[in-house]
Amino acid sequence: MSDSSSLNALIQGLRRLPGVGVKSASRMAFHLLQHDREGAQILAQALAQAASHVRHCERCHTFTENAVCDTCLDATRDAGKLCVVETPADQSALERTGAYKGFYFVLMGRLSPLDGIGPKDIGLQKLFDRAGDGAVQEVILATNFTAEGEATAHVIGETLKARGLRVTRLARGVPVGSELEYVDLGTIAHALVDRR
Amino acid sequence: MSDSSSLNALIQGLRRLPGVGVKSASRMAFHLLQHDREGAQILAQALAQAASHVRHCERCHTFTENAVCDTCLDATRDAGKLCVVETPADQSALERTGAYKGFYFVLMGRLSPLDGIGPKDIGLQKLFDRAGDGAVQEVILATNFTAEGEATAHVIGETLKARGLRVTRLARGVPVGSELEYVDLGTIAHALVDRR
Ligand SMILES: [Zn+2]
Ligand SMILES: [Zn+2]
Repeated sequence: MSDSSSLNALIQGLRRLPGVGVKSASRMAFHLLQHDREGAQILAQALAQAASHVRHCERCHTFTENAVCDTCLDATRDAGKLCVVETPADQSALERTGAYKGFYFVLMGRLSPLDGIGPKDIGLQKLFDRAGDGAVQEVILATNFTAEGEATAHVIGETLKARGLRVTRLARGVPVGSELEYVDLGTIAHALVDRR
Repeated sequence: MSDSSSLNALIQGLRRLPGVGVKSASRMAFHLLQHDREGAQILAQALAQAASHVRHCERCHTFTENAVCDTCLDATRDAGKLCVVETPADQSALERTGAYKGFYFVLMGRLSPLDGIGPKDIGLQKLFDRAGDGAVQEVILATNFTAEGEATAHVIGETLKARGLRVTRLARGVPVGSELEYVDLGTIAHALVDRR
């Protein structure tokens, strides 16, 4: 893009971001250097700070800056319920519903043998220990309804059921507000099977 | 996304990038913190370095770390030709063709009255001074073939012609390798008008 090695290094650095190819990276670099150098400095600071300060909650594995995250420290939550999600964003979506008041375990991923992601990478032993702590009565599997999310839920569910725990899964069904005509057939079929 | 203020600051920082909303920013932050902390540190370094070291070439306005960029210092180029482009990426595309051996002036933008970008923001006075330095014989307008790029080319062209300079514009036409059937009608119409 130019003879500036700093600029080329910036474009290469931006390509470390998921979904950012050389064209997007060039466009981002141009924008920051031409119109938002303050933004570049702010982002630089935020990256360095987060990369060195953010760690994983000892209890639920989500990102936190402390040993245990705020959610796990919330004594008003129902210790009998443990909800298993793939990512902090999924946890956040569940929290926003206001419909769940138990604890979480965040896998920070999903089983994906093709990508070499196995049980250890998503902390399954830690989850099994946590679920078997005596306080947990029900484990709610809220992994995504993708092939990998379903497989992950299956593996976790089988193990926990074998240990005598109650295991449930989020209901599959027709999204609220959608017209049947536009819903894919697989979803309708599942909504029929899971009908109340 | 969590109780980590570093993480939230990182998500906000990533949103300074063009085209990155809160969902993409969260996905990027998750990726860097979970899978590529080294990448986060490298990007942080690159951002800080570029934001403080990259400036504009005194002659052509492109990004450089020196007073004058390598292209402008290249004595083998034809000083009689000056090509006007919008961005360093456009200049780079022209360079890759190997079909042009003159100098450049990089506007680092285009006229866009609706966005408040006027002649001063794209250094038109500097361009006019440069074009009138006595060495330049022909100014080739290679701004984009968008409404704003065309308007910018028109403004520059009129001014330079009034000063007696030879002004040309990249030819509009059918892209090499394309089938007429799939080319938009405006392009075909222009290719007819500009036929050789
Ligand atoms: Zn926690
Ligand atoms: Zn230059």
